[in-house]
Amino acid sequence: MKTSRRSAVDPFIVMDVAQAAARAEAAGRQIVHMEIGQPGTPAPDTAHAALAAALPTRSLGYTVALGLPELRAGIARLYDDWYGVDLDPERVIVTAGSSGAFLLAFTALFDTGARVGVSEPGYPSYRQILKALDLLPVGVPTHAEAGHRMAPGDLPAGLDGLIFASPANPTGTILDRAGLSALIDACDAQGTAFISDEIYHGLHFEGRATSALELTDEVYVINSFSKYFCMTGWRIGWMVVPQDHVRSVERLAQNMFICAPHAAQVAALGALQGRAQAEGYRAAYAENRRLLLDGLPRAGFTRLAPPDGAFYIYADVAHLTDDSRALAAEILDGAGVAVTPGLDFDPVRGHRTLRFSYAASTADIREGLTRIAAFMAARAAG
Amino acid sequence: MKTSRRSAVDPFIVMDVAQAAARAEAAGRQIVHMEIGQPGTPAPDTAHAALAAALPTRSLGYTVALGLPELRAGIARLYDDWYGVDLDPERVIVTAGSSGAFLLAFTALFDTGARVGVSEPGYPSYRQILKALDLLPVGVPTHAEAGHRMAPGDLPAGLDGLIFASPANPTGTILDRAGLSALIDACDAQGTAFISDEIYHGLHFEGRATSALELTDEVYVINSFSKYFCMTGWRIGWMVVPQDHVRSVERLAQNMFICAPHAAQVAALGALQGRAQAEGYRAAYAENRRLLLDGLPRAGFTRLAPPDGAFYIYADVAHLTDDSRALAAEILDGAGVAVTPGLDFDPVRGHRTLRFSYAASTADIREGLTRIAAFMAARAAG
Repeated sequence: MKTSRRSAVDPFIVMDVAQAAARAEAAGRQIVHMEIGQPGTPAPDTAHAALAAALPTRSLGYTVALGLPELRAGIARLYDDWYGVDLDPERVIVTAGSSGAFLLAFTALFDTGARVGVSEPGYPSYRQILKALDLLPVGVPTHAEAGHRMAPGDLPAGLDGLIFASPANPTGTILDRAGLSALIDACDAQGTAFISDEIYHGLHFEGRATSALELTDEVYVINSFSKYFCMTGWRIGWMVVPQDHVRSVERLAQNMFICAPHAAQVAALGALQGRAQAEGYRAAYAENRRLLLDGLPRAGFTRLAPPDGAFYIYADVAHLTDDSRALAAEILDGAGVAVTPGLDFDPVRGHRTLRFSYAASTADIREGLTRIAAFMAARAAG
Repeated sequence: MKTSRRSAVDPFIVMDVAQAAARAEAAGRQIVHMEIGQPGTPAPDTAHAALAAALPTRSLGYTVALGLPELRAGIARLYDDWYGVDLDPERVIVTAGSSGAFLLAFTALFDTGARVGVSEPGYPSYRQILKALDLLPVGVPTHAEAGHRMAPGDLPAGLDGLIFASPANPTGTILDRAGLSALIDACDAQGTAFISDEIYHGLHFEGRATSALELTDEVYVINSFSKYFCMTGWRIGWMVVPQDHVRSVERLAQNMFICAPHAAQVAALGALQGRAQAEGYRAAYAENRRLLLDGLPRAGFTRLAPPDGAFYIYADVAHLTDDSRALAAEILDGAGVAVTPGLDFDPVRGHRTLRFSYAASTADIREGLTRIAAFMAARAAG
């Protein structure tokens, strides 16, 4: 048997870091994890409580493909609370994480060979999922001088679609309302389907991010309980689509997924009652971010993308190395801190960047910073 | 925005039945459900207990893409217990239900335009998922005279792959070891990748089904906790692939799914300790099957496919109607029993077939049979 050409997707470089970190831990070393894009905290207590209450009494069989109606309604209410948008719950599709939403969105919108823009740097799986579906990812570089804010002039001609995130991974950059509006208008003008990945919404530290749904209904919006609600492993997210796309996506979802995990849907419904706890986590990220914005430049990481939201800081390390992978390995080995080389996010320029995640506990971030500062000082003294 | 051509998948006919049944129930009528392909019972108590124990203490973040190592090991042990096959746990990939496994298998094995055989009748989503991935489903009709057992001579030339199920849905037919071996050999001879859907394994009522892994390692085997372990809504299944395909599928899984739902993995690990309870459910299905094999022919359904396993009976109703959809609607309306017209499973000949599911409780099956018998007698007298 042979594997397909479409399955030849790139490995994650960060996995090498994670494996090296695991080996070090197996050998008895204590590693600080700043490489992982997930909160160190579990789901809100209300999520676990809702599921614990359901386990003895509910059989948790298939739900309808679009998700539990009360969960769709609860998600729709978030749009009113967060953005003042009146959203019809019928347009909300509960998905198996944002991963499930990407598979549904790409399949619903694009035919083989379609050209879909992905930001560089950006979430690496966009590119790999597109390839696996025989779609053509087209890198759209963003620039440090522009704060990594994508503008209409950055868009190549003839894109069938664009997947765009604000707050962004790995940069944390938020595009403001005017900027997002301009980008959506530019896509609209050239018939480019706009997919707004809003998975880091709720995680902002100055002004909040604008949802594409504040600007237009002709858009796919993807979000998830993974980040703000700390439910990564539950694989539960959602997608909002134009009214006239609901039936089409429903049929795809029936066949490709049957439904999102029922237990996770019950837990997510509980999580919606746990927003106070989620805000507490956000306050911890804010403190972590403050520590890093103070400590990283003093350790020599002076060129940082605007860390408006999410829980990442993206550092240009061109003045330190031409090989971010080697630098990440050095930091892991020398400081016992795992960080992510930029190559996963930007195949072209990522050999000169690093991503620091601050989703861990504040104690871990403090410890990590201390170690990094000492290591970098010794390295500079070298 | 417009939807893609590949997203134009067929609707499920059974959804019309389910919706009509829901309307009747909303109007106060009590409907017996023999249309649904899921057990009426929840997961084994050990599954719920394992998760309940984990909720207070574990954060349930991402697992590694291939699944919890102890779950992979537990699944591998099933192959020894059930088939006497010594399976390397490294070849076991935990998936988001068999649905997730289909997406991974089709993507890992086939490029755009590949021709993949699907049995007619067969599980409808094979066809729709293949279409959504821009692959070409090729119907392989099986025949009532041959007990719906697929043979090498049924295979069209030039297939890139074949997805094959034993016990089958909707027929319940099991292909014996010699038959399965002949089919696999025929595929091997013409370079056709063989995917063995073994989701109904464990649910047999005479002899057990043969796993493709008893015959060859050069095969993809898909299974799930949904049917035997009654965990449909948990979305947890697995796939066994050749050793040299593991890395490729792992990369796809990392990008397309990140991981299978962690809570469901914990519950599945518990379910592996609940096999005594699952065997009790199987005894109930055996009784349901006995009742139907006695009662259906007396109600006029005399032409039944061999109900070797799963929890379905597939009836040829050509002597009763040329429109199975209308007959199913009549039975729902007249008898208050929901059954599935064959069109979902066989677009060509399904207008003359019905599927009866006996996954419900024995009390429900008794009641359903009584109603169907009375209705069909009145209809014949009509």
